[in-house]
Formats: sequence, C-alpha cells, structure tokens
Amino acid sequence: MYIDWKPDRSSNQSLHQQIVDWMQQHIIRGDWPVGTRLPSQRILADTFDVNRSTIISAIDELIADGLLETKAGSGTFVSNNTWNVLISTKRLDWKNYVQSGIHEPNLTTIQDINHYETDPHMIRLGTGELSPSLLPTHLIEATFHTTSFKTLSLGYSEPKGDKRLRQYICDYLQTKGITTSISSIMIVSGGLQALQLIAVGLLQKGSMILHESPSYINSVHPFQSAGMHLVGLPNQGQERIPEQIKRIHKKQKASLFYTIPTFNNPTNTTWTHEERLELLSICQQEQIPIIEDDVYSDLWFDQEPPRSLKSLDTEGLVLYIGSMSKTLSPGLRIGWINGPVTVIDRLADIKMQTDYGSSALSQHLVAEWLASGQYAQHVAWLRHKLRERRDFTLSLLNQHFKGIAEWDVPQGGFYIWLKLNKPIVNRYLFQQAIKENILINPGFIYEPQNNSHLRVSYSYASKEQLAYGIETLAKIIQK
Amino acid sequence: MYIDWKPDRSSNQSLHQQIVDWMQQHIIRGDWPVGTRLPSQRILADTFDVNRSTIISAIDELIADGLLETKAGSGTFVSNNTWNVLISTKRLDWKNYVQSGIHEPNLTTIQDINHYETDPHMIRLGTGELSPSLLPTHLIEATFHTTSFKTLSLGYSEPKGDKRLRQYICDYLQTKGITTSISSIMIVSGGLQALQLIAVGLLQKGSMILHESPSYINSVHPFQSAGMHLVGLPNQGQERIPEQIKRIHKKQKASLFYTIPTFNNPTNTTWTHEERLELLSICQQEQIPIIEDDVYSDLWFDQEPPRSLKSLDTEGLVLYIGSMSKTLSPGLRIGWINGPVTVIDRLADIKMQTDYGSSALSQHLVAEWLASGQYAQHVAWLRHKLRERRDFTLSLLNQHFKGIAEWDVPQGGFYIWLKLNKPIVNRYLFQQAIKENILINPGFIYEPQNNSHLRVSYSYASKEQLAYGIETLAKIIQK
Repeated sequence: MYIDWKPDRSSNQSLHQQIVDWMQQHIIRGDWPVGTRLPSQRILADTFDVNRSTIISAIDELIADGLLETKAGSGTFVSNNTWNVLISTKRLDWKNYVQSGIHEPNLTTIQDINHYETDPHMIRLGTGELSPSLLPTHLIEATFHTTSFKTLSLGYSEPKGDKRLRQYICDYLQTKGITTSISSIMIVSGGLQALQLIAVGLLQKGSMILHESPSYINSVHPFQSAGMHLVGLPNQGQERIPEQIKRIHKKQKASLFYTIPTFNNPTNTTWTHEERLELLSICQQEQIPIIEDDVYSDLWFDQEPPRSLKSLDTEGLVLYIGSMSKTLSPGLRIGWINGPVTVIDRLADIKMQTDYGSSALSQHLVAEWLASGQYAQHVAWLRHKLRERRDFTLSLLNQHFKGIAEWDVPQGGFYIWLKLNKPIVNRYLFQQAIKENILINPGFIYEPQNNSHLRVSYSYASKEQLAYGIETLAKIIQK
Repeated sequence: MYIDWKPDRSSNQSLHQQIVDWMQQHIIRGDWPVGTRLPSQRILADTFDVNRSTIISAIDELIADGLLETKAGSGTFVSNNTWNVLISTKRLDWKNYVQSGIHEPNLTTIQDINHYETDPHMIRLGTGELSPSLLPTHLIEATFHTTSFKTLSLGYSEPKGDKRLRQYICDYLQTKGITTSISSIMIVSGGLQALQLIAVGLLQKGSMILHESPSYINSVHPFQSAGMHLVGLPNQGQERIPEQIKRIHKKQKASLFYTIPTFNNPTNTTWTHEERLELLSICQQEQIPIIEDDVYSDLWFDQEPPRSLKSLDTEGLVLYIGSMSKTLSPGLRIGWINGPVTVIDRLADIKMQTDYGSSALSQHLVAEWLASGQYAQHVAWLRHKLRERRDFTLSLLNQHFKGIAEWDVPQGGFYIWLKLNKPIVNRYLFQQAIKENILINPGFIYEPQNNSHLRVSYSYASKEQLAYGIETLAKIIQK
C-alpha cells in the first residue's frame, strides 16, 4: 500500500482528526477492503509527517469504532466497514482474487525497486534507463511545437501499427544490414510487450525456453506466467552456449533461444561475429528459433558491434526485437518486432486483442525523428555522453572498489557487471543500501543463485550521485 | 497475408520480372517461410494491379526454380528456399508455432473486419469508433504547439501511471459521483487492456465469468485466452439479470459479472437506477465482484444516464473501467481502472511486467485536456454532433428498413442494434456486403447463435456513406 496523502497543517482540523477521517473514508469506500493490512505505525508516522503518538491515537479511535483490529505480532488490519455491519454479514474477499490470478507477481525485490524508484531522494545506481538529462525532452517539445499533424491518425491503428513508421523502421533496419519489408514489421509498446506477445502467441504451455544466464529475462515474467519454463545456460563455463543448446535440445526439445547478443543486460557482454555464426548454424541444424533482443546495439562507444543475428539470418530463424526505450525515451513506449510474415500476422492479431495498438502520438513522434535524421543525430550525441559517464564511473570504481570487486570495461550500452570478491549480495545488503538512500540492482534478480554480482548502471544517476553512491556503497559493503 | 507492394509501372523492368524478384526476396529472406500459402491468383492480380496471366507466368517461373509448388485444389505454397537447399535439408516450421500458441486467434470475421477497415474504399457501417471528422486532431495539434512540456516525464512511468493524470481523473470521476483517491486509480492503454490485466491478475483458470448477452466481451478474448469461460445471460428474457446471476451462482460459483450498464455495446441499452441497485444488492449478497465497463456514459443526448454502479458501491465490489477512446481519441490508448487499492496494486504490478506503462505523451495530453476544461468542452460538442448523426441515421432506417427490421431510438453512445425480421445475418451476408464495399458488424460476433441482428453505428461513416450504405444494405438484404 503506497500512500500519497498527508494531513494539511494549515487546516483548522487537528492532525488526529484528519487522519481518522481519511482512513475512515478509505475503509468505507472499499479502497481498503476488509483484511487489508495497514503499514506499520512508524511508516505511517513518516508518511504523514506526524508524531507516532498521533498515529497511535488515530488507530485506537478506529479500533474503537470497529473498523480496525490489531493482531499480535502481525500488525493492524481493516476488520470491518460500517455498511458491512448494517447491510450484511458477508464480505467480498478481494485477497483471494489477488492471490489466485494466473500471472506471476514481480519478485519482491523488483516490486521494491519499482516502488523506491518513485522516491526522488533515492540514488539509483542500477537503473536501466537514461537519466532525465540524457532524454531529449526539449527537442521532442520543439518537434511537437513545429510539426504538422497532417499525417497523424488518431483513430484505432492497423494491426501492425502505423504504415509510415513501419517504412521508416525498414529504412533504419537497412542501415543495420537487415533487409525487410513493412509487412514483416509490427509496432509494439516496448520490447517487453514483444516478449509477452511471443509467449502467448507462439508457444505451448510447458515449452522450454533457453537463454544465457544471467539474463534480463529472469527479472520479468512473460514466459513463466504463460506456463513456459526457462533454462539458463551459464555464459562463462567451459562449454560454449551453442554447444550447450545442442546438448540440452537432444534430451528435451527446446522451443526458443532468447538472447541479448549485443551489450547484454546485465552482463554487457557482446557475442563475436564467429560466435554469432556458430549460434545460427547450430540453431539452424537443430531447428530452434532465436529471439534476438537488440535494444542496446546503437549505443556503441569506440567501434560498431558485430552485425545482428537477424542480418546474418537467411532462414527466417530469428525474431528480432528493437526499441526506442534505451535510446530516445522509454516514456514513448515504442518498439518493434521483425520476422517472418506469418509470425508477424499472428502476433499482430493478438496485439489487437491485447490493447488495440500503440499510442498514435508516440508512433507519430518516432516516425518524425527517424525521417528527419534527428534520431541518428541524437544517438551520436548520446554515445558520446554515455562514454563520458562510463569513464567517470570506471574511475570511481577504481577509487573505491579495487580489491573488493572485479569488472570489465563496457564497450557500449548501460551496464557494468560488478563481481564482488565475497558472495554478500543478498536481500540484507539491498536493505542496508536503501537505508542510505541507495538503490541497487542485485545480481540475484538476473540469476537466482547469484550472490556475487551487482548491476551498476552509468546511464541514470547524476555524476554527483554516482560519486556519492559508489563511495557509500563501498563503505556499506566493507562493513 | 496482407501485401502492401505493387510493381512500379515506370520502371524499366517488366512487371513479370519485378513480381518474380519481389516474391523471390520474400522467400529467400524467410519473410515467407516454407509452407506459407500464397493468396489466390485472382487476389494477387488485383493486389498488384496486373493481368492474371502475368501472375501465372511469375508463379510458373518460381515453381521452375523450386521455390513454389502448387497442391491441387489448395493453392500455391512456398516449398523451399535456395539456402535451405544449399545448407541443409531441415526447415524450421513456424506454422507449428503460430498454431500452437496459447492465445485464441480473433474470430475470422473480426480478422476480416480488422483487415477491411484498412481499405479506404470500404463504407464502415458498424465501426465502433469516432469518425475522423469527430476527432479533435486540430485542437490536439494546437495543444502540442503551445503546451509546456515542463511536467512531461519521458522516463519509465510509475506502476500506476502519471500522478498528475491520476489526480485529474479523480477530479473527473468526482463529477460523475465517484469519490476516490489516486492510489485507487491506475492508467491503462485503453479499456481492453484493463480486461486483459483483470483476466490474468485476478482469476484462476476455469473461472466462470457472467455477462449480459449479447455483449462486446464475446468479440474479444482476454478471458477465454486466459482459460476462463464466459456465460451469457440473455437480457430480454422473462428472468431479470440479477435473478439469473443468483440462480446460476447457486449451482456454480461465478467469479465476476461483466457489464456495460450505460449505452451498451452492441445493444445500446441502459440499466435504470432501480435495476442498478438490485444488481448491486444481489452481487453484494452473493459476493460477486462486478466489472463496470463505462466508456460510453459521457455521450448522452437528452438527459444524463443513471449514476454509475461504482458511484453507488459502498462495498468495494465494483472495478470500474473508463477510457478516452470513445470520446477523445482511440489513438491515444488511454484508459483507467478504479477499485480497491489492493486490487489496483496487483494489477499495476502486472502492467509493469506487460508493457512498463502507457505512453507518456498520451498521458500528458489527456492530463492537459482534463485540467484545461477542453475535454468537457469537446464532449459537449461531441454529444451534439452524435445526436445529429443518430437522427440522420434513424431517418435513413425509416426510409429503407421499415418492414425489414426493428430498432430502438438510442439515448446516447454509438450504436443501433438492428433486428432483422428474418434470421439472415450470416457469413454470406457479410461477404455479399463486402462485394458492395460495405463493411457490417454482424450480431454473431457479439452473441454466437444470433443471426438476426446487426450493430449499426452512427459514429463513424460520413453522412454520404451512411446514406449510400444503408440504402445499399437494404437492397442486399431484400435480395
């Protein structure tokens, strides 16, 4: 339960009375159904910015009214609401509904991260997102101030998305060595939706999905919630990944291989050209389709990364996912899938049943930016800025983490995959960091048994925050 | 397979050669994997705007090359691609993937409708969407030309969506008699996504969903694809719907009741205040939550409809869905859910795993329009316009459908639920209408066994189109 309200200190009403009234309203309205657990007294006092005694007296009053009850050791709960008492003795228990849904909840740590990310005081050392200072908000504003909306259609979109945008994406993909046509492209609301559509559109329950481990895919649940199971292939062992794929597939048929081959999330590794050819060759032999999640490849520093798997794919084996979220803005919610037209037709049909298409405003803006060359200019600038941030962050690590951890030098993307010398990256460390207003992305989000790694991102926090955050984190770890 | 390409008549290359090259590319690239069925020769000739003999000769050439094959009676198929021949004898069969996904495909008729809606020559008599002339594209352009983007955040959104927008939605809901707070509201990408999230977030497989029949819910598959089954309650029988709910629920526990109580899609019926109270009372007694889909209620003509179920709900029994799609623009993809905070927390968690939130641009625009009063002004204008269109359409029906069909006079919304005197609304009628460039929404989309009804919409087609379309449709029906 996240509370956005505070009592009004300029009001005539006492703080106590305002809190009682406010809670009563939430209970009576059903916003807090019977069984809802209230935050702790300490958190309520912090949230409302009042003394703990004020909270205790307010809760006592509501207990006396029969609306709340305390259970020893487990907190304060909504026990009733006045209408319930008057009208009937039955109560709808939404809790059963909330707990019985099909979709997996986010991992607790990810829910916590989502929550703490809304706190402006938090220093976000692991956030996989561009800093507000790297988002071209003013340029986008300028585009909207001057652009003509003649080509904007505000009706429901075609199943595959705006035709004009798809054409520009074709042209853009051509610059990356991928030749395709607009009927093989569909627009999605970001890369994650692409995975969601693939999960429910192409796979049977019980299907096995192979992926590199650690992997971003462990931190989201599109496949697991649809009843597939994931098998992670360690990317640093003796046996190369294509060989692992072959070996495992012989025992149990794999349905897909999911990979971020360029500037991986979270490890920032990049497959070489030869590794890519080997992967394609084995997946071709074994007839295993590949999902290539390629949302970071524009963000190289010194030299362009090897060509995408899709550009090397002559067999229609690869479903290719791209996105504007890591380069232009996540708020636009625009990505795309490129693949065989029969597959795209199927996914577009499900997209129409899921959300009837993506925002026309966002599609319009992206089309304008691709057409005008502004996207290419922005990305060139961004590469430069991210490289600066990488160098700065590496210098901080050299200063504070020498002897405590190891890391590689990123060649692009957002992340440093920091390996601590001791396996202490657990829930406790996460919470200790929170106490110092530092939000970290622990390795176990991306690889369940991993207690050694942290995903450090140089893309989000300001330089001041990076400097303070990394120094403080080093201190916490040394404790 | 929808084709967006035509040979270039100004090119030096022959039409035949252009078609051969183009098809070859699609096959080689894997856009048309092995097993893909080509459209018929007639359709290809129409699509490419060439003689059928040109198609036949192009196909013959590709058959000779071993890329295509014909199977007697079932058409032309991709049989091979050159790399397959060179490199390996195995071929990935995407068809298995496309056919084995979990999600239900759209009904064929709905896929056809989605397809034909992209054809600008089609007269769309049943489209549930505002006409381009009713969309405030110029005013939205003006907003973007002048608005400040200071409050626009282009980063990933909070799980429940932009706070500012949620506050304005609270204020807007207050004008509709619903008192709530921003923690009980989440932003979704349109009403359909709300249903999708509820399906996977709150229900177990095998759950029974009750709904009025006919219903919009039969034309989309969020619940069915998640493994729930729908039970339609006839809304015109002897037994009132609340009584049916009670009776059925005694036999088998229902998980939800889904309803569009105001200006229903497709019937345009509206529950009276007393009916609403009875429904709430029975659902309260039986402990059945209600999904109130309330996307049309702003569009009343002569008098405001009865208050929403949510505004009468003192038990937290109702999940309320609203949207900008039917009033401001479907292209924005902005809707919301209002309900108990525990339920909203759960749904927001799944939304974060589905698409990481809705477009920031769209959220910004809607917040501006609600804050400035432009939304209210626009809706007032729209009510007037829709009423005019209703009157015009009724006059056409009086002219052409007297004696063939019956209908009620709509008090708001988009639809006339036209009941033909003979049960002839089938796939054949649909196709006959297509031949005359008229796209209809037959009743069986909304109620499987229904062969008597059509959903006629006065919201989309122009007056000229309505006049020609309704007259022509009457002629087709009389044949």
